[in-house]
Amino acid sequence: MAHPEALAQKVLERCRTLAQFSEEEGRLTRTFLSPPVRAVHQALRGWMEALGMAVRVDALGNLIGRYPGPHPEAPLFLLGSHIDTVRDAGPYDGVLGVLLALALVEGLEGRRLPLALEVIAFSEEEGVRFGVPFLGSRAVAGQFPAGLLALKDAEGRTVAEAIRAFGLDPGAIPQAAYPPGRVRGYLEFHIEQGPVLETLGCPLGVVEAIAGQSRLELAFQGQANHAGTTPMALRKDALAGAAEWMGLVEREAQATPGLVATVGSIAALPGVANVIPGEVRLSLDVRHAQDPVRTQAVARLLRHAQQVAERRGLGLEHRTLHEQPAVPTDPALSEALARAVAASGYPVHRMVSGAGHDAMVMASLCPTALLFLRSPGGLSHHPGESVHLEDVEAAVRVGLSFLGGLCST
Amino acid sequence: MAHPEALAQKVLERCRTLAQFSEEEGRLTRTFLSPPVRAVHQALRGWMEALGMAVRVDALGNLIGRYPGPHPEAPLFLLGSHIDTVRDAGPYDGVLGVLLALALVEGLEGRRLPLALEVIAFSEEEGVRFGVPFLGSRAVAGQFPAGLLALKDAEGRTVAEAIRAFGLDPGAIPQAAYPPGRVRGYLEFHIEQGPVLETLGCPLGVVEAIAGQSRLELAFQGQANHAGTTPMALRKDALAGAAEWMGLVEREAQATPGLVATVGSIAALPGVANVIPGEVRLSLDVRHAQDPVRTQAVARLLRHAQQVAERRGLGLEHRTLHEQPAVPTDPALSEALARAVAASGYPVHRMVSGAGHDAMVMASLCPTALLFLRSPGGLSHHPGESVHLEDVEAAVRVGLSFLGGLCST
Repeated sequence: MAHPEALAQKVLERCRTLAQFSEEEGRLTRTFLSPPVRAVHQALRGWMEALGMAVRVDALGNLIGRYPGPHPEAPLFLLGSHIDTVRDAGPYDGVLGVLLALALVEGLEGRRLPLALEVIAFSEEEGVRFGVPFLGSRAVAGQFPAGLLALKDAEGRTVAEAIRAFGLDPGAIPQAAYPPGRVRGYLEFHIEQGPVLETLGCPLGVVEAIAGQSRLELAFQGQANHAGTTPMALRKDALAGAAEWMGLVEREAQATPGLVATVGSIAALPGVANVIPGEVRLSLDVRHAQDPVRTQAVARLLRHAQQVAERRGLGLEHRTLHEQPAVPTDPALSEALARAVAASGYPVHRMVSGAGHDAMVMASLCPTALLFLRSPGGLSHHPGESVHLEDVEAAVRVGLSFLGGLCST
Repeated sequence: MAHPEALAQKVLERCRTLAQFSEEEGRLTRTFLSPPVRAVHQALRGWMEALGMAVRVDALGNLIGRYPGPHPEAPLFLLGSHIDTVRDAGPYDGVLGVLLALALVEGLEGRRLPLALEVIAFSEEEGVRFGVPFLGSRAVAGQFPAGLLALKDAEGRTVAEAIRAFGLDPGAIPQAAYPPGRVRGYLEFHIEQGPVLETLGCPLGVVEAIAGQSRLELAFQGQANHAGTTPMALRKDALAGAAEWMGLVEREAQATPGLVATVGSIAALPGVANVIPGEVRLSLDVRHAQDPVRTQAVARLLRHAQQVAERRGLGLEHRTLHEQPAVPTDPALSEALARAVAASGYPVHRMVSGAGHDAMVMASLCPTALLFLRSPGGLSHHPGESVHLEDVEAAVRVGLSFLGGLCST
């Protein structure tokens, strides 16, 4: 068997190779079906064909390499992740999962499994170009609403036009969907994008669920007034109200195990140093693995906001921009993954993913498992994003053990 | 004697007339030496000459009408306010004080006082065009540093160029300064720009001091991170820290009589809903009539910020942009003004001005008094800014009584 450390080395070299294919000089940005995607496809195609895989590109630009099973009707197991990036990205987010999947195929050294393997390089996960994520895995999972084809990018080009410009046919998207019954499962490797595994000293994490998410926008309305001539007792300061509420948001999240709540954007109007803010608009992002915990927390935070506003004589508006229920991974497949982690000699840490992944979409198609690799410094969506060689090696060992387990069941 | 109510009516009509002279269609914006200033000058010149006043424009564009005294060497008393505005202004801020001064001259009905009166329409007080306020009164008070001539407006024109374009000579600015010994005093009428008089049910306020002001900029530095994947306990959320500190700012100001403290502008970076803010920049504006109270409050607020930052593992930077000591008005002149208020049958309310006014600059030249007129709704720097007719009438009565008092002393 090829040595896992050598396979891990190759994975990291290939990540760095693909990181050169960018829309922007000097930094990595590779959005859905942008020109550098052709170079990524070419490289992947070469590496896949060298492993005896048959390569195809579906109507959405997902590149798929097939490692055949014992016969054409054999069940199918999927591995993969995405090859698009955010702007000014690091070299590992997404791509690492595709190249780890290829390392596993290479680690099989030509042995046939009782099932066919397909490695999918999803064309779109980050949602950068069209503002909507998971375009690639939605097509594969048969969850691609035709309406998405009319979305426009910043230059006014639609998804359909982008697909055609890449030489593909949007009319063939339905055929990109896998027939549900035929797929035995999907396994994805991804960097954690957070600090939990590093803090615990664990190289790997078995994801039990992808957290549900509520995204809201709130506005506190007060009365803009002169900062010098309005005594404290006569103010209706929208920012002072927002600040009080942000303190309650933080306390609520700290007091609720597993809950994260974030105010990421804030704007105070008119936003001038010598004027009391008359209006503050802010975002609220709340996530938890259990939907009732999340929705109850959101309700409590809105009640807090209402109370703060009433006590201060402020107006309050809020609207929900996005509600995403939690998605559990498949218990049996995740248990098999945890067994592979333990069998490979690594500590088993079960965790929740706070970020969305292609695995979340694939869970609607087939049993799904997701393995996180430790993110040094918790860095993500940042050019300084990295991954330890020994953690990639661990993922190779666990992946090969997992595939071995699939054979024996 | 002309009836004070009729004079007050005329003042308000003239305010509305001058409000038509604007740089912008449909709203009132009139910055330093902008084209509509010529129309204002023409109107003021006409009204002044009709009262037998000799009119001149100094090198900075201040328009000055002189109502002679008994002989050319008679002492001089000044009245005035400014004729520039903020953007999208109301019709009374500044202009009201100039037109009230003319109403007092009209109320004299040609009687000579033992001193000469000069009514000054200051060309610049708001600081809109060049970012620096009080250009007009600085020149009159002999406090105009030559360096200000090089300031540039948004179009890159300097103060000196603006002065020349208006047909004036920046070289003659030193001659715009009054010789200090000759000026007996300065009285200004101005809308309060705040809610205090309205809350108290008082038409007028005798200003005892113009509050000192500290303007600072602070930055909390944390670690930008993924809002979904970073547990609460592992965050360095710059906005959560800023929110905690803003609560302390509000409490500190509420607990310190007469202190106002305002966070008017805030920016969170990167400012995206699903990213924990890695940096927050905010403004702090602190004012009080007594400088030690203000500077001690600022020191406490900075200590609070340091403590919040340390406890949360955040970085903190701060710098002071502006320190303006408090300026008391002249006790004797203010007492004379208060006597005139009482003699005219109005309640005497002594107060602090939280905003700067030309009177603050004029206090370096001569004894100065400042009378506030109630601001309905506390509205200021807003097209809805207004003033009650009966309060303008009260100001006319008080002003005439005050001038009478000047004669008898």
